Amino acid sequence: MAEPVSPLAVAFPAMPAIAGVTLRIARAGYKEWSRCDLTYAELAEGTAVAGVFTRNVCCSSEVELGREAVCHGRARALVVNAGNSNAFTGYRGREAVDAIMAQVSGHLGCAKNEVFVSSTGVIGVPLPRGKAQAGVDAALAAEPCTWEDAARTIGTTDTFTKGATVQAVVDGKTVTLCAIIKGSGMIAPDMATMLGYIFTDAVIEPGFLQDMLSAANARTFSCITVDSDTSTSDTVLAFATGKAGNAPLASFDSVGADAFAAALNDVCLQLAHLVVRDGEGAQKFIAVTVTGAASDDSARAVGLSIANSPLVKTAIAGEDANWGRVVMAVGKAGEPADRDLLSIGFGGTWAARDGQPLPDYDEAPVSAHLKGREVSIEVDLGMGSGRATVWTCDLTHGYIAINADYRS
Amino acid sequence: MAEPVSPLAVAFPAMPAIAGVTLRIARAGYKEWSRCDLTYAELAEGTAVAGVFTRNVCCSSEVELGREAVCHGRARALVVNAGNSNAFTGYRGREAVDAIMAQVSGHLGCAKNEVFVSSTGVIGVPLPRGKAQAGVDAALAAEPCTWEDAARTIGTTDTFTKGATVQAVVDGKTVTLCAIIKGSGMIAPDMATMLGYIFTDAVIEPGFLQDMLSAANARTFSCITVDSDTSTSDTVLAFATGKAGNAPLASFDSVGADAFAAALNDVCLQLAHLVVRDGEGAQKFIAVTVTGAASDDSARAVGLSIANSPLVKTAIAGEDANWGRVVMAVGKAGEPADRDLLSIGFGGTWAARDGQPLPDYDEAPVSAHLKGREVSIEVDLGMGSGRATVWTCDLTHGYIAINADYRS
Repeated sequence: MAEPVSPLAVAFPAMPAIAGVTLRIARAGYKEWSRCDLTYAELAEGTAVAGVFTRNVCCSSEVELGREAVCHGRARALVVNAGNSNAFTGYRGREAVDAIMAQVSGHLGCAKNEVFVSSTGVIGVPLPRGKAQAGVDAALAAEPCTWEDAARTIGTTDTFTKGATVQAVVDGKTVTLCAIIKGSGMIAPDMATMLGYIFTDAVIEPGFLQDMLSAANARTFSCITVDSDTSTSDTVLAFATGKAGNAPLASFDSVGADAFAAALNDVCLQLAHLVVRDGEGAQKFIAVTVTGAASDDSARAVGLSIANSPLVKTAIAGEDANWGRVVMAVGKAGEPADRDLLSIGFGGTWAARDGQPLPDYDEAPVSAHLKGREVSIEVDLGMGSGRATVWTCDLTHGYIAINADYRS
Repeated sequence: MAEPVSPLAVAFPAMPAIAGVTLRIARAGYKEWSRCDLTYAELAEGTAVAGVFTRNVCCSSEVELGREAVCHGRARALVVNAGNSNAFTGYRGREAVDAIMAQVSGHLGCAKNEVFVSSTGVIGVPLPRGKAQAGVDAALAAEPCTWEDAARTIGTTDTFTKGATVQAVVDGKTVTLCAIIKGSGMIAPDMATMLGYIFTDAVIEPGFLQDMLSAANARTFSCITVDSDTSTSDTVLAFATGKAGNAPLASFDSVGADAFAAALNDVCLQLAHLVVRDGEGAQKFIAVTVTGAASDDSARAVGLSIANSPLVKTAIAGEDANWGRVVMAVGKAGEPADRDLLSIGFGGTWAARDGQPLPDYDEAPVSAHLKGREVSIEVDLGMGSGRATVWTCDLTHGYIAINADYRS
């Protein structure tokens, strides 16, 4: 947390305990620092697990092993290492993860594939197995800690600590979701990682938890971008301890499934927005809404083309209503679009409609909108009923300073 | 040319005249400036033409009309407007282009589709028809000018004037290619445009000229990127006046066709590199060579993923041998790759081989290489025989300053 706090930061919320989840932190000493850098979450027996992972084909061993383990659907523990991503470290990296899984499963008397490990930080340096195992021992002996302690400990270059909580009523029972996330701060020579963990006391079948998490992911984490670079370690895991006593959620036909899915989507959206709000160098939070597309997927692709465009992002940084750059980004997306049906607005004011600048376009309200911290861009393709919203931040000197003005 | 000259600039070369090409410039006054901003090239009767155009679906009327006209294969004139791209201007923009084509074809007594028009500059403002037509009249009455005059006049935010020339021997005749280009400087609120024009005295059938230009484009203009944003106006046209007297080039079986194709590729590569050397904020010229890919196309896709990665580009700006970011960019490309076969080097020195950092990696020669103006990144995927080289520049504070620190 060396960087100045993002101007878009949000205070850490009050988060209740989740029955069946115990958090502990320790210092493994992955870097020369005095902070805690190892987070341990112990989960009640029978906890269901689901996960979504980076699609980067050069992913870390943690991601590979997690993707395999999540298929079994059960979890007893989570270990998160901060300061070393263990990516691109070959068999030595994999052995370190395997050793942590064996150590924790031995302690708990559970299967190895019920132990989930994530790592974030510098890449190309094998996770030091000795430090990791001593760190796990220290965590196992530590007093339980708060959500905020855990959220701080999984962070690396984050400028603020990120958490979200939501409740829902399922089958007459109030169930709680608490979640923490780190990212998407990056600082040379480290690499982007977004690690998110959602804990709930609801009773849910693992397969259905996976279905709901995948659906929420498609509308939240998959709709944010800071700089178009995809981490080798991105991971979001959801754990359901089953302590709330509701009738098990097994499909969307289950009582309360819709309410839980909505709560899960809500908490994922909060986490995703927190990551964008800590985007490197971010000064403005940008929502890009695309309507009138051939399909929802097409709308999302157009939205991401806009949100990833350095020319659009620098224009917003400069508080410049440069809708021409939005036209360019729509056109390069490779999705169905017709220049002469295209409409573009900022903050609810149309600047161009049906392929032409509006003759009576009043830039004053747009300029006022762009001076704020929260900016919206509206694009109507005028073709179909597909729609999507994606979120990003602006591209500023701060991004260059963080990523270029530092030498490894 | 208000920005400081790029540190990667190359002096304008001595370029000979091309028989059948006469250049003239004039001031249409598209902006409040005293410079010439309209370029007119008159071409001998029977000149063959070929073209490649932006794939941005929100392209300008100039691109649409040029794409149609190039199918007829013949050209008598080229008009280039600087200061107004005429993009996203609806029917009014199209009428202005049509008016220029009618005016010039009336003057020359040729078909309208033998007149090619390009425009570059601010978008969303219809090209003022009166100014354009008065500008064309002034150009028609002007004295012939030099290649350097024409190259300067097509430029907008370019920091140096760009040209290239090559000769080849075809059928016992020496043929000459002279070419000019503008781009890829961008300055808010204008939009990127790359406009390139190649003139030769060789005798070439239009269809074969198109084949050769498309092939050269795939290995040159399509292998460069400054910031991943695709212009609505990108255009490269090749004109062959046929004054060299060689036996017509009609296919690769024609005598001298290989020599001409090589010369055309060479001149396209020179032009493409000049554009990268004037990339906004560029301090370093970067060549990314990918070998061992599943195919040449796959190698190019991986190369562009690296060349477009803001984290890789900022690392090079910071002279940081951050090969982890290259791993990330390989992995996110979506092309066949195996983390454990991947090797990465800088300036000919391997930093990582077969998926792991080299234990005896000596960073000293890499650090020395990265301090230079010309940087190379080598990636071997270890899978197949596909290879490609792409070129880009680094991402610096200069890019942000040009695109965000300016208000429209």
